[in-house]
Amino acid sequence: MTEQKSPVTVVGLGPMGTALAGTLLDRGHEVTVWNRSPGKAAPLVAKGARQASDIADAVSASGLLVVCLADYDALYSALAPAGEALRARVVVNLNSGTPKEANEALRWAEHHGAGYLDGAIMVPPAMVGHPGSVFLYSGSAEVFAAHKDTLAEMGDPTYLGTEPGLAVLYNTALLSMMYSSLNGFLHAAALVGSAGVAATEFTKLAVDWFLPSVIGGIIKAQAPTIDEGAYPEDAGPLEMNITTLKHIIGTSEEQGVDTEIPFRNKELLEKAAAAGFGKSSYTSVIEVLKRAAA
Amino acid sequence: MTEQKSPVTVVGLGPMGTALAGTLLDRGHEVTVWNRSPGKAAPLVAKGARQASDIADAVSASGLLVVCLADYDALYSALAPAGEALRARVVVNLNSGTPKEANEALRWAEHHGAGYLDGAIMVPPAMVGHPGSVFLYSGSAEVFAAHKDTLAEMGDPTYLGTEPGLAVLYNTALLSMMYSSLNGFLHAAALVGSAGVAATEFTKLAVDWFLPSVIGGIIKAQAPTIDEGAYPEDAGPLEMNITTLKHIIGTSEEQGVDTEIPFRNKELLEKAAAAGFGKSSYTSVIEVLKRAAA
Repeated sequence: MTEQKSPVTVVGLGPMGTALAGTLLDRGHEVTVWNRSPGKAAPLVAKGARQASDIADAVSASGLLVVCLADYDALYSALAPAGEALRARVVVNLNSGTPKEANEALRWAEHHGAGYLDGAIMVPPAMVGHPGSVFLYSGSAEVFAAHKDTLAEMGDPTYLGTEPGLAVLYNTALLSMMYSSLNGFLHAAALVGSAGVAATEFTKLAVDWFLPSVIGGIIKAQAPTIDEGAYPEDAGPLEMNITTLKHIIGTSEEQGVDTEIPFRNKELLEKAAAAGFGKSSYTSVIEVLKRAAA
Repeated sequence: MTEQKSPVTVVGLGPMGTALAGTLLDRGHEVTVWNRSPGKAAPLVAKGARQASDIADAVSASGLLVVCLADYDALYSALAPAGEALRARVVVNLNSGTPKEANEALRWAEHHGAGYLDGAIMVPPAMVGHPGSVFLYSGSAEVFAAHKDTLAEMGDPTYLGTEPGLAVLYNTALLSMMYSSLNGFLHAAALVGSAGVAATEFTKLAVDWFLPSVIGGIIKAQAPTIDEGAYPEDAGPLEMNITTLKHIIGTSEEQGVDTEIPFRNKELLEKAAAAGFGKSSYTSVIEVLKRAAA
């Protein structure tokens, strides 16, 4: 028995939009595509996609519109000319932005009588449709439930909640964590590199073991202290780590490696200690981060 | 058949030394202990350890001395009075310090006619002797091979090479990576927390998936570029990430979360771009870190 698959319209044919449309075609969906510069559609048309004559045609072709443009402004300017055609359609918007922008987009969609789901793609185009590719969604639970099967063709759909800004907020938070971790790894690789250790050799301990088991283990074990807002020093007081960071700075100097990264980490802990968290758990640093810089 | 286990002397009975001695006793080793303040030995003596009358007695009791003191100076002042007793003994030194200090300790041991291995314990005392506990060692390959079985009782012994400073250098590098990753996680948790997401809830994506699969995956995939010293921008140019960091800063401001962490990450990438790596891979940031701050 062949299941009837829903038609989908993909708006925006950059590398990611092209990957999404191509995957939906591969899975047997009827796919309509639209892009501001129409030439981008040719490879998808060759695979069986239909190129819409204009945005109203694109919007009318399917109940589900997957939009993958640069930002929210591009979403508005691309879809606005469709006008009444948007009524009763569902817009799944996958560009990045801020939670505030996601909320505005929901109101914009409601104003046009359309359903709305905000999303964030957590994998590069080459990973779309492959196992382990994560797509985050937030907004209407009904809209998500109605289209979950189609969304699952593109990647593992993770629904975060009704607040429309959650997907872009999660995306931004994970990226922030990524930059700190990558830069921390690069400082560590520079340190062992100063003694001739290859970065690939170092990853065998740093990434295969230390990152998931030790760093991941500490975070999992300590995260409840954040939710409780109580920061018991069972695993040692925060201020103890200032001494360790001074040692890291000293070793970096001795090895001729830049000290900026451990220096900034030390500075943050000193700020937390000055705010009264010296005898608390490491996680109490979040209390300083929650307070926006003046 | 019961295997004959080597006698071991443990010098330094803080929480870690006590855990080491206790584990060796549990595994059937004859254990002699010594500590500057002798009262610390009582619980181990109750478990079957012999308390040495003085440091020369402690050193003479076993071929292998496991030393777990605060720093290298404490090692010298504790062992120096043993004098000639040190000859032909092996010192496995587990305190933290710098590669330079590890090299000095090797020369000190050689001067006393003792073998020397430098080590770093990567787990808390409670994990000693349990599966998955990692101990790093560096220095003489012969000394390591001769005592590997005994060292394996305390934790999984990983030998890094003949350069004695490697164990403490790896330890310091991994800790530097840890602080950046922890602080990055805390900023991310503050971001999603601003929308009411619990830290424990966030770890389900951030730690169970993103940290090992995405961050770990990127590092494993990109580490070869560091060793080759060529930084092709296959995964996108470094400067693209400056735009993403500006977005993270903007979202942090919008959500009322401190911007210091993404700001410093952006600053580092801008420094790399200014040094000519804007069109290179992200990993080229290490070229800036290798150059010690003036």
